[in-house]
Amino acid sequence: MEYRELDVSSIIEYLLSVDEVASYFGGDDLKADEIGDGNLNYVYLVSSVSDSNKALIVKQAVPYLRCVGEEFALGRERMTYEIRALSKFKEIAPDFVPDIYHVSEDMSIVVMQYLENHIILRGGLTDAKKYPNFSEHVSSYLADTLFKTSSLYLNSTLKRKLIDEFNSNTELCKLTEDFVFTFAYMQNETNDADNVKDNPLAQKLFSDMEFKEKVLDLKYKFMTSTDALIHGDLHTGSIMLNENETFVIDPEFAYVGPFGFDIGALLANLANNYVHHTIVTKDEEFKEYLLETIKEIIELFESKFLKLWEVQKNSALLIDGYIDDKTAQKYREKFVKRILQESIGFAGCKMARRVFGVAGVAEIRGIEDKQKRHDAEALVLKIAREFVMKYEKIDSAEQVLEIIKVNSAG
Amino acid sequence: MEYRELDVSSIIEYLLSVDEVASYFGGDDLKADEIGDGNLNYVYLVSSVSDSNKALIVKQAVPYLRCVGEEFALGRERMTYEIRALSKFKEIAPDFVPDIYHVSEDMSIVVMQYLENHIILRGGLTDAKKYPNFSEHVSSYLADTLFKTSSLYLNSTLKRKLIDEFNSNTELCKLTEDFVFTFAYMQNETNDADNVKDNPLAQKLFSDMEFKEKVLDLKYKFMTSTDALIHGDLHTGSIMLNENETFVIDPEFAYVGPFGFDIGALLANLANNYVHHTIVTKDEEFKEYLLETIKEIIELFESKFLKLWEVQKNSALLIDGYIDDKTAQKYREKFVKRILQESIGFAGCKMARRVFGVAGVAEIRGIEDKQKRHDAEALVLKIAREFVMKYEKIDSAEQVLEIIKVNSAG
Repeated sequence: MEYRELDVSSIIEYLLSVDEVASYFGGDDLKADEIGDGNLNYVYLVSSVSDSNKALIVKQAVPYLRCVGEEFALGRERMTYEIRALSKFKEIAPDFVPDIYHVSEDMSIVVMQYLENHIILRGGLTDAKKYPNFSEHVSSYLADTLFKTSSLYLNSTLKRKLIDEFNSNTELCKLTEDFVFTFAYMQNETNDADNVKDNPLAQKLFSDMEFKEKVLDLKYKFMTSTDALIHGDLHTGSIMLNENETFVIDPEFAYVGPFGFDIGALLANLANNYVHHTIVTKDEEFKEYLLETIKEIIELFESKFLKLWEVQKNSALLIDGYIDDKTAQKYREKFVKRILQESIGFAGCKMARRVFGVAGVAEIRGIEDKQKRHDAEALVLKIAREFVMKYEKIDSAEQVLEIIKVNSAG
Repeated sequence: MEYRELDVSSIIEYLLSVDEVASYFGGDDLKADEIGDGNLNYVYLVSSVSDSNKALIVKQAVPYLRCVGEEFALGRERMTYEIRALSKFKEIAPDFVPDIYHVSEDMSIVVMQYLENHIILRGGLTDAKKYPNFSEHVSSYLADTLFKTSSLYLNSTLKRKLIDEFNSNTELCKLTEDFVFTFAYMQNETNDADNVKDNPLAQKLFSDMEFKEKVLDLKYKFMTSTDALIHGDLHTGSIMLNENETFVIDPEFAYVGPFGFDIGALLANLANNYVHHTIVTKDEEFKEYLLETIKEIIELFESKFLKLWEVQKNSALLIDGYIDDKTAQKYREKFVKRILQESIGFAGCKMARRVFGVAGVAEIRGIEDKQKRHDAEALVLKIAREFVMKYEKIDSAEQVLEIIKVNSAG
């Protein structure tokens, strides 16, 4: 099928031509509304006129950045990778990925479950809302998706096929290389110019060569490690949830990269939220909940990842009988420790880039009081710096919490 | 063009249909002889009947292992990667790759320069022959090919395209994963059964869990690092040379892998040759030459790689202005040190796998005196083990020589 850009009027005809979608709506009349919050893509809510409980989300990529306009070209192929990742993650972790009704790489379109009763995690946390099942859910998602797309599970041939499917997600990988690992730590036109100007924090960060050298190591790891299929942009805005269910969405940055990148992204966003509450709400109980959540995610991830690995006797890496059980166990434990360490390094980059880089987060850059925003930024950078400088020595979740707490108390 | 298997009679007609080849021979009558030394492929020497100075080599892959026969299937796609790698390496390091007259991925065929006055390095070294330009040449080849296919030189888009071109060289990568990193250190039907049987050296190696755990780390690096386009099988049988010229041939194992693998392969084969002379010829002068060669290769590689990097202001990894010159220099030096360390780790694996694994080398497995062969194997394993156990602490070429010398003196 040849690509064409859909709109609220043409989308219904298109959807009715797709059997799975037509059968979902069972012959009802349909209406379509554009939902305005996509930066990159057009997002529509399509629902039954007679029964508003029947509704699906349609996402279509256009060959430019939606929030800027046609003058900012961005290949619509990004949707190809989102489609492939959604399908792969749905297969591996079905409880944590929305149901998919239709995908077409030609049309750069995906039709999926409407998460009516779920909100974006970032907003929930900023409103100090607790999610009792979140750590349990997200640690399962991370352990399952990372382990089952790695050389610790797949054989050598399947692993290379997986790399092939995602290797050409070049444009979006480049965005991460530039915006997470480079531009946010130097004078660059894409930065938040108002904030950078005459700001001693920016001067200090941009001339912090020790920090930037460590960031280079992490950038190199990001570019040249093919550990597992990662989501690639797992901040708290890519998670929709309620008290019972957790869904990971928007994997258009997916590619085969380092184990620690998704875990790091998530921890970074939780830590930034902690900073928000430290400076703005001073809600000690919620801060404690955030720390507990970070600890649980790390520890549950480790134990779930190890558990999956223990029963996997053959993979690209290991074949049964190569080493004895005791050595294998020691090897696995050291390996998972390294994943934690790299996660903390990546978390430091993902925190720090939010301060002056192009993409701020609401809970920091959205703080209206200027002094408080400045204090929050200073604290983000302090924690981020320790994460980046010390990640290779991190040995436990406790040490991660310690870094957050000690700096926030200061 | 559809693939068909050529033979001595059909090959001449095929070659005359290729303009570059026809023009090379200028209308002369041609004859073709099969050269018997290819394990994987058919190799022909095609020459002018009237002027034997005009001659070319033709290599064609068949969809099975030539030295075993049609019952051992092996995809002829390996020639696709050999063709791509030859073309890429010829572009980057033209002095050290034979001239190419014709390639066809469809026909799995390559036509190239006949290296009439050159011999295989392995044989030369075993005969204690010195090559005064070899270190200079091979260090240039290594520095150029590794640097210019890495993220330190290419931009992010070109690097991903390069990965794409070689990522599906799955069968040959799997051979390395199995035979270099796994089977040679455990009971396995592919090993040299006569030698393994009742051999205390084999018992010791197969139960050496410390060593095998380290080998796993190196195997993991081999499988998941996309540093640069590597030759993938750079032993001394893949180098043809004379006193003036050095050529690297047979890159069918090429893929985008770790920086240290080719360097390690080469150093391993030089060290194994040192072991041969230690046990068999006791030629102290030649042993000194081999050590000097190892030292020169390491040190020349480091300085040439650094020199290429110093003038490269922009790449996937670094952009001009990100860090100051002093930090950049420190970063580059640390980076190159890590390449040396990993090279030594890989060298250890490449040495050790020659003892019991499927593919022995003449200078060790070919030693006729049984006791001497056993002594040589013991020494190979001793040096290899130190390389693998200590590679992360290696800091200089001197330390590498020290490990070889001290163990050989014992």
